[in-house]
Amino acid sequence: MPYISLNSAEPGIRGLLRFRPETGRPLSELAEVLLRGPGTLSRGERELIAAYVSALNHCQYCTSSHSATAAAQLPGGMTLVDQVRSSPADAPLSAKLKALLVIAASVRDSGLDVTAEQVAGARAAGATDLEIHDTVLIAAAFCMFNRYVDGLATIAPEDPAVYAAGAEHLVNEGYLPPPAAESGFPAGPPAEA
Amino acid sequence: MPYISLNSAEPGIRGLLRFRPETGRPLSELAEVLLRGPGTLSRGERELIAAYVSALNHCQYCTSSHSATAAAQLPGGMTLVDQVRSSPADAPLSAKLKALLVIAASVRDSGLDVTAEQVAGARAAGATDLEIHDTVLIAAAFCMFNRYVDGLATIAPEDPAVYAAGAEHLVNEGYLPPPAAESGFPAGPPAEA
Repeated sequence: MPYISLNSAEPGIRGLLRFRPETGRPLSELAEVLLRGPGTLSRGERELIAAYVSALNHCQYCTSSHSATAAAQLPGGMTLVDQVRSSPADAPLSAKLKALLVIAASVRDSGLDVTAEQVAGARAAGATDLEIHDTVLIAAAFCMFNRYVDGLATIAPEDPAVYAAGAEHLVNEGYLPPPAAESGFPAGPPAEA
Repeated sequence: MPYISLNSAEPGIRGLLRFRPETGRPLSELAEVLLRGPGTLSRGERELIAAYVSALNHCQYCTSSHSATAAAQLPGGMTLVDQVRSSPADAPLSAKLKALLVIAASVRDSGLDVTAEQVAGARAAGATDLEIHDTVLIAAAFCMFNRYVDGLATIAPEDPAVYAAGAEHLVNEGYLPPPAAESGFPAGPPAEA
């Protein structure tokens, strides 16, 4: 049961975004840009980084949600996601993505744990500055999302079907709430009206 | 020296916000709402939570920046901030703020470390659900900002005058970038033109 009284029964971060739309909006926009915006890491690869960090942080809701969303967008599906979560070095990934996951794991411990050698390794494997930047920020952002979700003891459903349905929505619609849901009030007329 | 080539010499997170304005905008908006938006915790109290968590995470840039910004907005100034950083339980703070700092320290370790007893203690000291929510999210957000700043090895100036000047700017202008600086292009005409 959540530590605070939410205004919906929605699980995980969804209930928190609805409870506090003023912070929910920039949080949703950050997720949308980082995980789905234009970029040279695929959406599936970015979700994989999110799932991996969330698993290291033992955040059940975020791990289940982003594992499902990664699996839905990667050819290897959930088999690959499970391999990455148990042993990323042995998973069938590109050398670049493996090197970026090493950086993500360091960020999860502390930003100060990322080493010049790790960054050089990622660059030698073909990672660009923007990919290194985005990997660090995805890992850092999930250190926030995981703490937000668990620090308020939100509900994490057990049923994998819940996360599969959520993943389908995220793959098709993304992280931005519809305007009416965001404010809790009916949407106003379009700006061009 | 930062691990990636930035497009300015700006230190700490400022260089990162400029490097990647697509993520910089929601990150800045999150900081503005959390640390300066309408709320029953004062702006100084919220900056104090940010400084405290950043110090626990050993992030020199964020600790210096938010300590200066807290000091500029709290009657106790930097003396109080230093007391809180060394021993919050002994600092001259309200029982409510002390209880919220206990929650913030737990969030810093892991969201799973926040206990029902800590939340009950904060509530008994007068904290509202929204104050508990915002404390958890401020602490979680600085676990992101700290990792972002240090994970890319950004520059943290040694000179306290740099942070005092930054604090004056933040107190007066806030966290949102001016429209032109945000996009890197000249601002368009005002929306009402």
